[in-house]
Amino acid sequence: MRVLGIDPGLATMGWGVVDEKQGTPEYVSCGAIRTPAGMPLSSRLVSIDRQLGDLLNRYQPDEIVFEELFFARNVTTAFTVGAARGVAIAVCARYTDALFEYTPMQIKLAVVGYGHAEKQQVQQMIKMILRLPGVPSPDDAADAVAAAVTHVNAGRARFQFRMK
Amino acid sequence: MRVLGIDPGLATMGWGVVDEKQGTPEYVSCGAIRTPAGMPLSSRLVSIDRQLGDLLNRYQPDEIVFEELFFARNVTTAFTVGAARGVAIAVCARYTDALFEYTPMQIKLAVVGYGHAEKQQVQQMIKMILRLPGVPSPDDAADAVAAAVTHVNAGRARFQFRMK
Repeated sequence: MRVLGIDPGLATMGWGVVDEKQGTPEYVSCGAIRTPAGMPLSSRLVSIDRQLGDLLNRYQPDEIVFEELFFARNVTTAFTVGAARGVAIAVCARYTDALFEYTPMQIKLAVVGYGHAEKQQVQQMIKMILRLPGVPSPDDAADAVAAAVTHVNAGRARFQFRMK
Repeated sequence: MRVLGIDPGLATMGWGVVDEKQGTPEYVSCGAIRTPAGMPLSSRLVSIDRQLGDLLNRYQPDEIVFEELFFARNVTTAFTVGAARGVAIAVCARYTDALFEYTPMQIKLAVVGYGHAEKQQVQQMIKMILRLPGVPSPDDAADAVAAAVTHVNAGRARFQFRMK
């Protein structure tokens, strides 16, 4: 089974692909969809739509996992980050019903075993679990990989959360 | 020239179509795209995507106008309303580059001539300007019609605002 993890954002949307082999996560690929700040919002959203559609075609994931958004500096920021996340969810929901979502705390708990772990601890654990030569980069890609690993581990522990 | 106005929202997204005939707005149609609160967010966003796509096919507008979002009760609400708006912008941006956006104050100023007008004053002016038998319903549809009328009037006054 192949899992695509997504850490939604407007300027940088992290993604990570992980295969589940006999209950164990295996690293496939990761990266970030970027849209420049100078571009109109409408063009940025269309760009996210297309780039994410390309990723779905290329990697054909069976299940898709989002890191849940909780924090925004203010309502204005929440509108634009929410817009990027909305477009990403719509692209993925047209592709599959198998959408899942985990909070940052659930991801930390699943990866490090401690819900208040630091970002660096999560990244080091991801590197170890997937036997990578280094921490995935940029941070948003690492977060997306962590979401995918969480989903694989959650499958074993039977606490996977469908997106509401 | 045909203008589609959109008042973005998740539960109710108002829309209104107005034709410009020699600088004067003429009413064509209006309504609301609704998605039920019990439905998962992903399904609601796909539903908005499809319904709005159908509207674009049916009415083939030349230009599209959004009422700008400013207010949300909190960041969580802003995320979900922003998601609906983001999906709507992406659908429209795939269809045309001619996207415009006005703040509620700009709409009140263009329709009533007073930026702090009450919602009821805007609705009564829309009814008069378009010679309608009654106020467009629901409120979100009336707001979308007002955005479209604003754009037509703004064209005459040369203060149309492209979406950034």
